Amino acid sequence: MTPGPLNAITDVNGVRVGHVTLRRGEGRLRPGTGPVRTGVTAILPHGGDLWRDKVPAATWVLNGTGEMTGSIWIDTQGALEVPILLTNTMNVGRVMDGVVAYMLRRYPDIGIGDDVVAPTVAECDDSTLNDARGLHVSAEDTVRAIETASEGPVAEGAVGAGTGMMAYQFKGGIGTASRVLPPKDGGFTLGVLVNANMGRRRDLLVDGVPVGREIADLMPRESTDGSIIIVVATDAPLDHLKLQRLAARAAIGMARTGTFANHGSGDIILAFSTGNRVPHDPKPLTYALTVVADAHLDPLFRAAGEATEEAILNALTMATTTTGRDGNTAYALPLDRLVEAMRKFGRPHASLARP
Amino acid sequence: MTPGPLNAITDVNGVRVGHVTLRRGEGRLRPGTGPVRTGVTAILPHGGDLWRDKVPAATWVLNGTGEMTGSIWIDTQGALEVPILLTNTMNVGRVMDGVVAYMLRRYPDIGIGDDVVAPTVAECDDSTLNDARGLHVSAEDTVRAIETASEGPVAEGAVGAGTGMMAYQFKGGIGTASRVLPPKDGGFTLGVLVNANMGRRRDLLVDGVPVGREIADLMPRESTDGSIIIVVATDAPLDHLKLQRLAARAAIGMARTGTFANHGSGDIILAFSTGNRVPHDPKPLTYALTVVADAHLDPLFRAAGEATEEAILNALTMATTTTGRDGNTAYALPLDRLVEAMRKFGRPHASLARP
Amino acid sequence: MTPGPLNAITDVNGVRVGHVTLRRGEGRLRPGTGPVRTGVTAILPHGGDLWRDKVPAATWVLNGTGEMTGSIWIDTQGALEVPILLTNTMNVGRVMDGVVAYMLRRYPDIGIGDDVVAPTVAECDDSTLNDARGLHVSAEDTVRAIETASEGPVAEGAVGAGTGMMAYQFKGGIGTASRVLPPKDGGFTLGVLVNANMGRRRDLLVDGVPVGREIADLMPRESTDGSIIIVVATDAPLDHLKLQRLAARAAIGMARTGTFANHGSGDIILAFSTGNRVPHDPKPLTYALTVVADAHLDPLFRAAGEATEEAILNALTMATTTTGRDGNTAYALPLDRLVEAMRKFGRPHASLARP
Amino acid sequence: MTPGPLNAITDVNGVRVGHVTLRRGEGRLRPGTGPVRTGVTAILPHGGDLWRDKVPAATWVLNGTGEMTGSIWIDTQGALEVPILLTNTMNVGRVMDGVVAYMLRRYPDIGIGDDVVAPTVAECDDSTLNDARGLHVSAEDTVRAIETASEGPVAEGAVGAGTGMMAYQFKGGIGTASRVLPPKDGGFTLGVLVNANMGRRRDLLVDGVPVGREIADLMPRESTDGSIIIVVATDAPLDHLKLQRLAARAAIGMARTGTFANHGSGDIILAFSTGNRVPHDPKPLTYALTVVADAHLDPLFRAAGEATEEAILNALTMATTTTGRDGNTAYALPLDRLVEAMRKFGRPHASLARP
Repeated sequence: MTPGPLNAITDVNGVRVGHVTLRRGEGRLRPGTGPVRTGVTAILPHGGDLWRDKVPAATWVLNGTGEMTGSIWIDTQGALEVPILLTNTMNVGRVMDGVVAYMLRRYPDIGIGDDVVAPTVAECDDSTLNDARGLHVSAEDTVRAIETASEGPVAEGAVGAGTGMMAYQFKGGIGTASRVLPPKDGGFTLGVLVNANMGRRRDLLVDGVPVGREIADLMPRESTDGSIIIVVATDAPLDHLKLQRLAARAAIGMARTGTFANHGSGDIILAFSTGNRVPHDPKPLTYALTVVADAHLDPLFRAAGEATEEAILNALTMATTTTGRDGNTAYALPLDRLVEAMRKFGRPHASLARP
Repeated sequence: MTPGPLNAITDVNGVRVGHVTLRRGEGRLRPGTGPVRTGVTAILPHGGDLWRDKVPAATWVLNGTGEMTGSIWIDTQGALEVPILLTNTMNVGRVMDGVVAYMLRRYPDIGIGDDVVAPTVAECDDSTLNDARGLHVSAEDTVRAIETASEGPVAEGAVGAGTGMMAYQFKGGIGTASRVLPPKDGGFTLGVLVNANMGRRRDLLVDGVPVGREIADLMPRESTDGSIIIVVATDAPLDHLKLQRLAARAAIGMARTGTFANHGSGDIILAFSTGNRVPHDPKPLTYALTVVADAHLDPLFRAAGEATEEAILNALTMATTTTGRDGNTAYALPLDRLVEAMRKFGRPHASLARP
Repeated sequence: MTPGPLNAITDVNGVRVGHVTLRRGEGRLRPGTGPVRTGVTAILPHGGDLWRDKVPAATWVLNGTGEMTGSIWIDTQGALEVPILLTNTMNVGRVMDGVVAYMLRRYPDIGIGDDVVAPTVAECDDSTLNDARGLHVSAEDTVRAIETASEGPVAEGAVGAGTGMMAYQFKGGIGTASRVLPPKDGGFTLGVLVNANMGRRRDLLVDGVPVGREIADLMPRESTDGSIIIVVATDAPLDHLKLQRLAARAAIGMARTGTFANHGSGDIILAFSTGNRVPHDPKPLTYALTVVADAHLDPLFRAAGEATEEAILNALTMATTTTGRDGNTAYALPLDRLVEAMRKFGRPHASLARP
Repeated sequence: MTPGPLNAITDVNGVRVGHVTLRRGEGRLRPGTGPVRTGVTAILPHGGDLWRDKVPAATWVLNGTGEMTGSIWIDTQGALEVPILLTNTMNVGRVMDGVVAYMLRRYPDIGIGDDVVAPTVAECDDSTLNDARGLHVSAEDTVRAIETASEGPVAEGAVGAGTGMMAYQFKGGIGTASRVLPPKDGGFTLGVLVNANMGRRRDLLVDGVPVGREIADLMPRESTDGSIIIVVATDAPLDHLKLQRLAARAAIGMARTGTFANHGSGDIILAFSTGNRVPHDPKPLTYALTVVADAHLDPLFRAAGEATEEAILNALTMATTTTGRDGNTAYALPLDRLVEAMRKFGRPHASLARP
């Protein structure tokens, strides 16, 4: 399948991404001070008034050693009404607080005549590189990530919530990719953004090639089982049930990169559709949805799998070697050796360059 | 079935409850200032080292217009490793932050060699009485609720997280009750604590009597659909699956008080067992569990239903009339009229007094 | 809320019900011969071509000691494409075979160019009264129940799949009820049909009155924990998610009749909406759904709860004393004593007569 | 990881497999007569009295366009008490009937003093090769599959329930594989048996090599989206929750063979542990379980993924070209060309022979 023009989640019309990257200090851990290698990433389903024009959404969990707040509510109303935020584990509370601050500022009726807000914040653990005990992501950082979110190209690798993440014991973090369906399948666009922090080296597959076994050095001194948060966006008109099924295909894309979903991994997926709106206005008795028929879901399923697989690989290939707390270093996947491994396994066309 | 000596969740040996009640200011809403009618409640499954000696636990949702953070993780490891916190909706982030602060202080290895923390915080919406936009529950309040949690009698009604809650359009809040099984059924103790903030007046049943239709006045000027958080504790040895089934019976107890579980209600239940321990220590390959056989679960199911029903009614009968923001008043269920209604419907023995 | 003209699931326009009642032999059990006290009940969502014009549907389980085949498929496509059949536990295979026979006859392309069929058959255990080992419900009986299903009044009590069922240790079986929403809530109709085979005597509540404790005699010599299957139909336009939430309210209705959902009970609910169609035709890329907005679901939730509660009571009040295998007798709930109990508990208006 | 001595599910001590293969007739479809290309496969968790000594079990669904009866009950009691049967879609009823017949014969108290039976039968659709409308698998065939189930080597490919199945548009069917954990990880054995009937040619991966794109010919004239049933057995002591998590890893193994889990596929997994017993005897109040600690699950997760991946490939490599109804032909994956493709993609060691 063909990627969209940006090969990013922002190929889905209206979707916005904002990163705040926090990187300061070197050397020995001084809890509360640093080194800081963390951040926050915001994803907005559209540029309009999401609170009043919600989008159908669903969550799906492959392995749940992780957190995505708001998931109970999303799977009850079948819709998303707040920006999606990604950050590190122990910062979830502060980032929720930031979402609340943002919403209170924007909606003066919330908590008075209007409903109260339940933020959607998902996390991975960056404590190998980052002073996680320092809780360096503030509510203000969160508001900034939301307010600076924009359409257009998405920075990948060691940025935003991905700043301190590791995947397959290489440097990981933010990755994104997209697919455009052929016109006969509706011509829909589907985009994925991941925060990749999971996997063990020996399991890494790139397009089926056992790259992790080919590049067995460049290992970090320390590493813990991490997680992956996957956000799937599409303009295909879907409802909660079909989005939940679509989310499960993102897990297939993840599996294609080699991991078996370790116990310690929170493999949590959120999918939303910009092809329908769910009104906040309580007055109308009913509203209308359009949904892609089951017989036509397979191209979307494939797109979700392919885009997730590629988004994870993009996180790996775009991330740069990062040294964090106590000198812990996560090495970037070396592109020359990746190309070499690909060629060894029958992909002579392989060629890659980090920008 | 017979209640325990305290008729409280603390009848389950080791369980501790702590409340921090925030109540200040009167009159017109000045967002950020008050009036404040809110708080935070902590429930600790045992007095030992919960992080290292986890308890089996499970969550179950009847209607999910609400939040209980940590639920994905609890239902993955089938265990609970952190105190349970209850508060108001938009304060969840700050209370999570408080749990993190408490854990970091207590466990210096968290986030360095040890795992990171995912707090369990559940909410109801107290914005009718409280300046919810003011986010008055701080991380420090949270730590205080945890640190002052104690065995013994549990304050009910307009205390802790229940300070600003309303149930059946009366004043609601914290309620608790317990049941002790007969020796032939194992002699186990089961206790329930609720934060009751749900229900419409006309639906209220007390022991089957349509009290809500009998007392149709004393209505609040404003009210929104609220939620109920139910925590079930037992010393019966259970595992995740049986606890999940037990949690579902708390919903039956709730149904017996008359509500149909409105769309706007987050009816979220967490059940844990102190009769088993799940070790944090990663070294041993296996551990042992004892579980009550399915053929003997019914008395526990009944206990969960009965104790939940009574805990909700205790919240109503123990709460006192509360006036909050903009003069909004939630009236206490008048005990004399409750007795009168009970007598009218064939319960001549009824007699009740607020302490 | 007001019942529909028939106070039956058939008040939902298009819904059809068919019963085949099998009742022969008396006295001592001769496995394979009798006594036979069993049957099969068919529910058709509409009178058209259900295979080609499916209806949105969802299942929900409170306690799963039971079976509803096809539930995985229903909750994947979010729709129902075959008649719903109720029968006894060990006859599920034969009744599935009957559904297949019916479908093969009607659709000559099934299994050749068209899809294959996955029947929806749900069961309760009638082995106290019935020669369950005899497997007396045949594929032909099943086809007959489907083919004779009709609109109009629905026989209740000891008929069809309810012939040998017991509820609250009285004679139970088939019950039905309906509710019509006020025009301001959309004027929708919701109907429920149950096969009631669950509950212990002492738990029985009728409109909150502890009838089970008031009528403690007339107990069966033998009884096992049974199950209840609840089918909820509505013409309100809903989708899978909202139907699943609606189904959960049927469990609330069941709870209002007093049971705590015993371990041995399969409390399984299927809800469908005739207010939308899901096309079988694989050609169109998309289709449209209309759904009731969340803010307007509460009247439907209440209707599902009320109609389920009443359908169970109707099963009890319409069933007649039945003696089955080995002289086991399930007594009918005595209406005069029910009225007496109701009056004792403040319902002076109570009056009931079995037709 | 190392396979067990048989590289089969029967490497798990006690597990038994029985096939009844039905193959007769050629040429044009005469519904009810043939050609017959179908069968039934039985899997018994142990050779003892499964009804009285149940094994912990759990089901998990990736995509649910399929059926596994009994799954609601398995996931309620967290245990399996009946043989597992695999067959074709429209034969599920008759095979359930066969399980009931087998159980009634063996347990004269079932349905009298003892509980009734809920069979576990899972299906795939073999209607491209088989006269599916003929419903050729009888109750007697089912009893025979159960009664002839044995330890030792397991026939693979076009046998038993796999007789008429197709995978990746090659001939598919039954496949099995196993893994033995190193002593440091407990030395447990895990075995998988699949009935592989899913996938589109172009998606087929073998150890990451795009074999499906390399062998684009040998396509069937007709094919429909099929399903895969995966049964995971292990002697590692696990409970319901950990088995459910283990089952999810079988889906990862499936994903590694290339499919994205098409809409039309029922990807349904059942996992059981022979390392614990759940007693049927209702007398003891409690029973004990041993469980592998979460920190030690990863080797089991990997084993489940690897064994599932290999079991699917074994189904493909062991199946033989089969011509069925109307001359429809499913070609065997040609081993020489498979080896060639493997070599082209950097696996010079590849060598395979069909026995």
